Amino acid sequence: MKTDIQIAQEAQMAHIKEVAASIGIQEEDLEFYGKYKAKLSDELWEKIKDKKDGKLVLVTAINPTPAGEGKTTTTVGLGQAMAKLGKKALIALREPSLGPCFGIKGGAAGGGYAQVVPMEDLNLHFTGDFHAITSANNLLAALLDNHIQQGNELGIDPRQVVWKRCLDMNDRSLRNIVVGLGKKTDGMVREDHFVITVASEIMAILCLADDIFDLKKRLGKIIVAYNFKGEPVTADDLHATGAMTALLKDAIKPNLIQTLEHTPALVHGGPFANIAHGCNSVRATKMALKLSDITITEAGFGADLGAEKFMDIKCRKAGLSPDAVVLVATVRALKYNGGVAKDKLSEENLEALAKGIVNLEKHIENIQKYDVPVIVTLNSFVTDTEAENEFIRHFCEERGCEFALSEVWEKGGDGGVQLAEKVLDTLEKKESHFHPLYKDELSLKEKIETIAKEIYGARGVIYEPTAEKQLAKIENMGFGELPVCMAKNQYSLSDDATKLGRPTDFDIHIREVYVSAGAGFVVALTGAIMTMPGLPKVPAANGIDVSDEGNITGLF
Amino acid sequence: MKTDIQIAQEAQMAHIKEVAASIGIQEEDLEFYGKYKAKLSDELWEKIKDKKDGKLVLVTAINPTPAGEGKTTTTVGLGQAMAKLGKKALIALREPSLGPCFGIKGGAAGGGYAQVVPMEDLNLHFTGDFHAITSANNLLAALLDNHIQQGNELGIDPRQVVWKRCLDMNDRSLRNIVVGLGKKTDGMVREDHFVITVASEIMAILCLADDIFDLKKRLGKIIVAYNFKGEPVTADDLHATGAMTALLKDAIKPNLIQTLEHTPALVHGGPFANIAHGCNSVRATKMALKLSDITITEAGFGADLGAEKFMDIKCRKAGLSPDAVVLVATVRALKYNGGVAKDKLSEENLEALAKGIVNLEKHIENIQKYDVPVIVTLNSFVTDTEAENEFIRHFCEERGCEFALSEVWEKGGDGGVQLAEKVLDTLEKKESHFHPLYKDELSLKEKIETIAKEIYGARGVIYEPTAEKQLAKIENMGFGELPVCMAKNQYSLSDDATKLGRPTDFDIHIREVYVSAGAGFVVALTGAIMTMPGLPKVPAANGIDVSDEGNITGLF
Repeated sequence: MKTDIQIAQEAQMAHIKEVAASIGIQEEDLEFYGKYKAKLSDELWEKIKDKKDGKLVLVTAINPTPAGEGKTTTTVGLGQAMAKLGKKALIALREPSLGPCFGIKGGAAGGGYAQVVPMEDLNLHFTGDFHAITSANNLLAALLDNHIQQGNELGIDPRQVVWKRCLDMNDRSLRNIVVGLGKKTDGMVREDHFVITVASEIMAILCLADDIFDLKKRLGKIIVAYNFKGEPVTADDLHATGAMTALLKDAIKPNLIQTLEHTPALVHGGPFANIAHGCNSVRATKMALKLSDITITEAGFGADLGAEKFMDIKCRKAGLSPDAVVLVATVRALKYNGGVAKDKLSEENLEALAKGIVNLEKHIENIQKYDVPVIVTLNSFVTDTEAENEFIRHFCEERGCEFALSEVWEKGGDGGVQLAEKVLDTLEKKESHFHPLYKDELSLKEKIETIAKEIYGARGVIYEPTAEKQLAKIENMGFGELPVCMAKNQYSLSDDATKLGRPTDFDIHIREVYVSAGAGFVVALTGAIMTMPGLPKVPAANGIDVSDEGNITGLF
Repeated sequence: MKTDIQIAQEAQMAHIKEVAASIGIQEEDLEFYGKYKAKLSDELWEKIKDKKDGKLVLVTAINPTPAGEGKTTTTVGLGQAMAKLGKKALIALREPSLGPCFGIKGGAAGGGYAQVVPMEDLNLHFTGDFHAITSANNLLAALLDNHIQQGNELGIDPRQVVWKRCLDMNDRSLRNIVVGLGKKTDGMVREDHFVITVASEIMAILCLADDIFDLKKRLGKIIVAYNFKGEPVTADDLHATGAMTALLKDAIKPNLIQTLEHTPALVHGGPFANIAHGCNSVRATKMALKLSDITITEAGFGADLGAEKFMDIKCRKAGLSPDAVVLVATVRALKYNGGVAKDKLSEENLEALAKGIVNLEKHIENIQKYDVPVIVTLNSFVTDTEAENEFIRHFCEERGCEFALSEVWEKGGDGGVQLAEKVLDTLEKKESHFHPLYKDELSLKEKIETIAKEIYGARGVIYEPTAEKQLAKIENMGFGELPVCMAKNQYSLSDDATKLGRPTDFDIHIREVYVSAGAGFVVALTGAIMTMPGLPKVPAANGIDVSDEGNITGLF
């Protein structure tokens, strides 16, 4: 069997100007990065902004399991299938991070015959967006420490610096560090932390900003520290905003690449789906809606995190309205949710399936709360049985959802035609009456409780004393109207990663709350959230190489 | 008067494919980064490698002063002037670092009407080469710390880790840090250091590698630490080489841009000229020689550092042979060397000039030791007087050097015609008999002493006990045949930055010696060398902005 990178490298890519032409973009509106990648110019937006929007379809999934669900693969394959059916479709994805690429998880270009290419470029530096974010993030940090070093006019409390440095790397040694050691000229000693670039607030800002001017405004509002009086100090206070904006001038332009079947794909931005909102950029989604009849996009992790934030943060703030949601599951993942061990997932087990399917059930119910039609798809695997598939189909149809098998991993667009037809059918026949889950006017606590009860199925919410204080302070500072970004583990609907299926009788524990003032949301942490991953015993990096023919090998 | 960025932004740039066509490069051999930047493909090298080399001209300078010399400006202007004279000329420069851009120094695209463009792109992320180096550098660091964390099979001594993390940023707080604090899962505690990206050994490697395969070989040899037995541990031992090479696959391809007058310029790589060799990449220089009749390149700092390393490291190792050297001075800088205060440099002062010109004299003598013809040029300034210019002309001609005034800052290529004519004249009439200063077979100490006495004019060399031990160990390890890279302050010919002019009766003090095994040289430190700069009280970053029209302002 061929590996993903072999399939990707054998692809006959079209020149990106041809891919662009297929959705009506002229060469003059492209900024090429080689032959197969291009950024869409700001001028293009001016030309298309008054066009009618196409339909918006979100691809999300049940809670992730070690079995794998294939959300990106389904998104890419669905786009390819739409093209097979003669539809003008555009895929909108997040960019992968270098960290996981060298760690355990590998890249994020889809899989099998449903991939976006060039896969190596995408997984390595791509068009440099993440590097630009890393630079802007670390310029702000350098300016902050320099301000303290040069006399600290703003009275920044070194114990209350909340801005962290970042690298696009899995590097646990940088989680907790002490900086500024050495001589007087080497800075002021303080505790510091590095996060991975996708966890930087700048990543979230880039993905929520309407354009470069909105980006600049948001960057200026970033709270980097508190002064000795407890008042916030911002990027604007440090005169850092202009230079950061200059660094991000190209990064805010969406990137165009293609699938293995030349379907156009905008791949842009990639914030975490725990401490951030987990969706590609607003700029890319808005452009996609103008350029196509159907935009297919995805959100991070399971629907409890990704879809909730897509709806309650991204759509609310950007004025977007999804027309349908595709919910991805696999037979194996549902059996895993039903308690089957990882090495027994290949055996038919209808009992475990019936037990595990409650996870899917809860996500269907959740999406229906937003009044958006749902289509469930099974990303099929060779060990799935007819009986298992039929059980799930019946389960979904009973709940008013369309259902379709997807074989895009094996067959590319052809394997997604059934799903695409169901989606088209839904778009035609079922109307979306999208609305966010909660209103802006609710208090932060009411917002947290609404998400916890309605989406997670919790009994209630318990606040640690620190969190109580922080909530009060944040509302006092005037940020009470912002939506809440819940930082929860992705594996369980609850805040206990070991509780699979559809847990009941549990509380959500809020341990810490802070405001991402530039991004425009309040983050509520329900536990220790890893913002700087580590490398495993044998990192994927060990297997990556450049062959004697000059080709990259071992990326996955 | 217009600022550099205003002049640059008003430039009518040609599409880079037209610039490429002017030196016979076809579109298929270009990898575009927008309309005005392109990388030269590996296939191009295969097509041109058997062509005859053009002439190689090095631009270097007297010791730098706060008055400024304008070496890059002269290099760019000379290239423009060659084009005016109908010559097929190519400029080969280093890429600027983001750090100084946001600090004091500003960018490095030349100045006035002798600039390479697009200036903003070049000074910000350009084609991402430095970001790729940062990533490769920090991947190696992460793999190293991960190896220690996961059981430390290689027995790495945490007190003898010599590999440092890097960022392309001026950030003094990262000079001396402690990493790995926190819990057991957060890594092993140890002292660590960040350097600026241009100080990474990977930068030197990229600039000395012949191609991607040579690059890979060199990366594998990097010594990252010593084990508890005192033996070196390399990147190969950590299985890091393949992934690092993959990260650098595009970074090793030279970048083509243009001057304000559309002269082609290869801008590629940018190692420090103290702990590294301070020249653009071998790959770019070799390509330039095949693609043009005259390649005009420069080296970092003054001739004692930049030209010495260009000759003794780059040319020696890459088999290059310079045909002429242009030595840049200014009346102001020579008067500064003669003891005139910075605010009095605008007044005619022949006495100070006569006193300070000994700095120029020494550099002329030095270059003549390599048996390469010298042309001295004065980068003219509005306050220079006729008498001062004539004094210098006479001084140079007495020493067998050609002399020409240069007004390229004010007049672009037209202002460099006189200089270009002198260079062409020299290339035609004077033969270069280039040879490095010392032989590979000399001991490391003999090499250090040769440079110290012959180039710096020192009486002798004094080794600190640590340095003595390190030298013995490095020769024992088998690195005695490598050239020596002297890390000395750039302001004085001696190792005391305050001794201007042509100091005598001084010793060079060698405090520390280490081997850059991948780059292929032994670094001898003559004092504390800053490998991570800091920001000033009012950093340049404070003045950089994006205007309401979307243009970058305040870069210089």
